[in-house]
Amino acid sequence: MSNPIVATLESGGTKMVAALARGPGEILFRESIPTTSPDETIARLIHFYQNAFSQTVQPEVLAIGTFGPAELDLQSPQYGFITSTPKPYWSQTDLVGPFKKALGLPVVFETDVAAALVGEAKWGAARGMEHVAYFTVGTGIGGSLMMGGRLIHGVGHSEMGHMRLARHPDDHFEGACPFHRDCLEGLASGTAMKKRWNVPAQELPADHPGWRIEAHYLAQACCNVLMVAPPERIILGGGVNHQPALLALVRDELRKLLNGYLNYDQLSGQLESYLVSPELGDDAGILGCVALGQQYLSLS
Amino acid sequence: MSNPIVATLESGGTKMVAALARGPGEILFRESIPTTSPDETIARLIHFYQNAFSQTVQPEVLAIGTFGPAELDLQSPQYGFITSTPKPYWSQTDLVGPFKKALGLPVVFETDVAAALVGEAKWGAARGMEHVAYFTVGTGIGGSLMMGGRLIHGVGHSEMGHMRLARHPDDHFEGACPFHRDCLEGLASGTAMKKRWNVPAQELPADHPGWRIEAHYLAQACCNVLMVAPPERIILGGGVNHQPALLALVRDELRKLLNGYLNYDQLSGQLESYLVSPELGDDAGILGCVALGQQYLSLS
Repeated sequence: MSNPIVATLESGGTKMVAALARGPGEILFRESIPTTSPDETIARLIHFYQNAFSQTVQPEVLAIGTFGPAELDLQSPQYGFITSTPKPYWSQTDLVGPFKKALGLPVVFETDVAAALVGEAKWGAARGMEHVAYFTVGTGIGGSLMMGGRLIHGVGHSEMGHMRLARHPDDHFEGACPFHRDCLEGLASGTAMKKRWNVPAQELPADHPGWRIEAHYLAQACCNVLMVAPPERIILGGGVNHQPALLALVRDELRKLLNGYLNYDQLSGQLESYLVSPELGDDAGILGCVALGQQYLSLS
Repeated sequence: MSNPIVATLESGGTKMVAALARGPGEILFRESIPTTSPDETIARLIHFYQNAFSQTVQPEVLAIGTFGPAELDLQSPQYGFITSTPKPYWSQTDLVGPFKKALGLPVVFETDVAAALVGEAKWGAARGMEHVAYFTVGTGIGGSLMMGGRLIHGVGHSEMGHMRLARHPDDHFEGACPFHRDCLEGLASGTAMKKRWNVPAQELPADHPGWRIEAHYLAQACCNVLMVAPPERIILGGGVNHQPALLALVRDELRKLLNGYLNYDQLSGQLESYLVSPELGDDAGILGCVALGQQYLSLS
C-alpha cells in the first residue's frame, strides 16, 4: 500500500514551496512562489492547492514547516501564527487559519527545521532513529530536537541559534545578532561569516582559518545539545555546511571538547557516524512536511 | 483514596536513603545508611525494605533516584547499572537487579536529579507544570529536563554539568573538572567555588564578587537549556543555591543574556516566577521517588 498523499507547505521568508507528495520520488505537484504580502501569498497558495486537488486524490492533511518564530502551542489563541518576525508584513500573521478554512483540512504546523529533522529521521540521514538533533546553518541558525520519536517543544520551539557560546580566542568579530553579541547565530551564521570575512561563506577557501573558527562554534553548540539531551546522531544542514571541509573540522573540535567524558557507542571513532550531513537535498522541506503529515494521519 | 505506597531509594555517593512513603507528610519508614561497598550497602538496604514491608502494606514498586552516570536504556544489557563512576567499588554496579530479585518488585530507575524534578513537578515548585528544568549545584552539577510531562533522555541521561560556557572576564580560575576546563561543573560547582576562593561556598559572604561570577555561569546554563527546549520554569537546587543572595543574581544575569529576545509570558518581569528554588527541602529525594513510582503505577 502506498503512503498517503500529503499537501505540504515549506514556508520561507524568501519563497514558499507548496506540493502534493507521498514520499521520496513521489512528488506529484510542486510550485514555488515568492513570499510577498501575507494576503497575496496565501491566496496564491490556496489557488495552487485547489487546482492540484482537482487533479488527483484529495489529501487528508496539510503540513506546514515554517520560518519562525511561530506559535506552536495548541492552547494559545495565537496558535498557527508567525509571531514577532522582523520580516515586513508577516509579524502576527495567522498561517494556519486561512488554509484550514479554504481547504477544509486539518493542518500540522511546525518549524521548517523541525520538518527537515522529521524528514531526515524518516527517509534520510537518521533513518529509523528516535533521538536526533538537526542544525541548519544559513543566513540564520535554527535547530530542532527529537527525543523518543517526538519533536521537543516546551513553552515554545527550540531557538538553538541563540545559545551562548565561548569565543574562539582568535575571533574579535563583534557578532551579527542584534540581541546577543556572542550567540551561535551571531558568531556562526552565514551572515556572521560574511560580515567577519567580507566575503560570503561559499567563497571562503577550504583552507581559510575561518573554517576552524566556524567549527569551534558549531562543535560547542553540538556539545551543549549533547549535554542537555543526548541524540543518537546530529545532522548539520544549511548553506554554510555546503563547504565540504567543514564537517570534519566540526567532528574534530567536538571530539576535543568532549575529551572522552561520554562513552556512548555512538561517540566512538572520529564521530563519522555521529555528526553527519543531511541526505534529502533540495526536497528536504517537502519530504519533511510529508513525514509530518503522515505521522499525523497514522496517529489520528 | 490515598496515594499508593512506594518503596524509594535515594542513592547517593555518601549515603543511601531508603523509605516507604505515599507523599508529603506521609513518609512511613525511613532509613539512612552510609554508602560503603555495593555488596554491603545493598544487603543493608534489602534488609530495611524486607523489615519495613513486614510491618505495613507491601508496595507494588521500588523507585530509585541515583547518582550517575547510570544506564537508563531499557534495551541495554547494562540497564540499571551505575556505569563509569570514579567512586571506588561502584563502577559497573548493577543497582536494579539485586533489589528486583530480593524484593520481587518492578523497579523504576532514574537519576537523582530527575527524581527531584518529578517530585517538584508533582508537589513542589513546579506543581502541575509539564515543561520543567532542574539544576542541582553541589559538589558536582546535575540537571534534568521534563517536556510534555516526560523526562527527556536520549541515548543517555542529561549531563548538563558538562555544557561548555563562556568565561566570566574576571575569572582566571583553572577549572575543577578533570575532563573539561570550562564546563559548568568545572566553573560553578561547589568544588570549583571552594578551589577558586579557598573557602567553601557556604562561607563566602553574600556580597562577595564570587557570587556574581557564579550567577554568570548558572544563567548561561539556564539560557542554553531555554534555547534548546524552553521550560515553563527552571528550578535551581543544591547546596550552592543555599546562599539566599544567589537566585536574584542569576535572574539578573539571565535577563541580561536573553536581552528581550524571547517574549514568552513566563519570562516577563524580573523572572521571579521563572527561576525559582525547590520547595520540597530535605524530603525532595524521597518524594521524587514516590512521584516516579506512582507515575509508573498509574501507567501500568
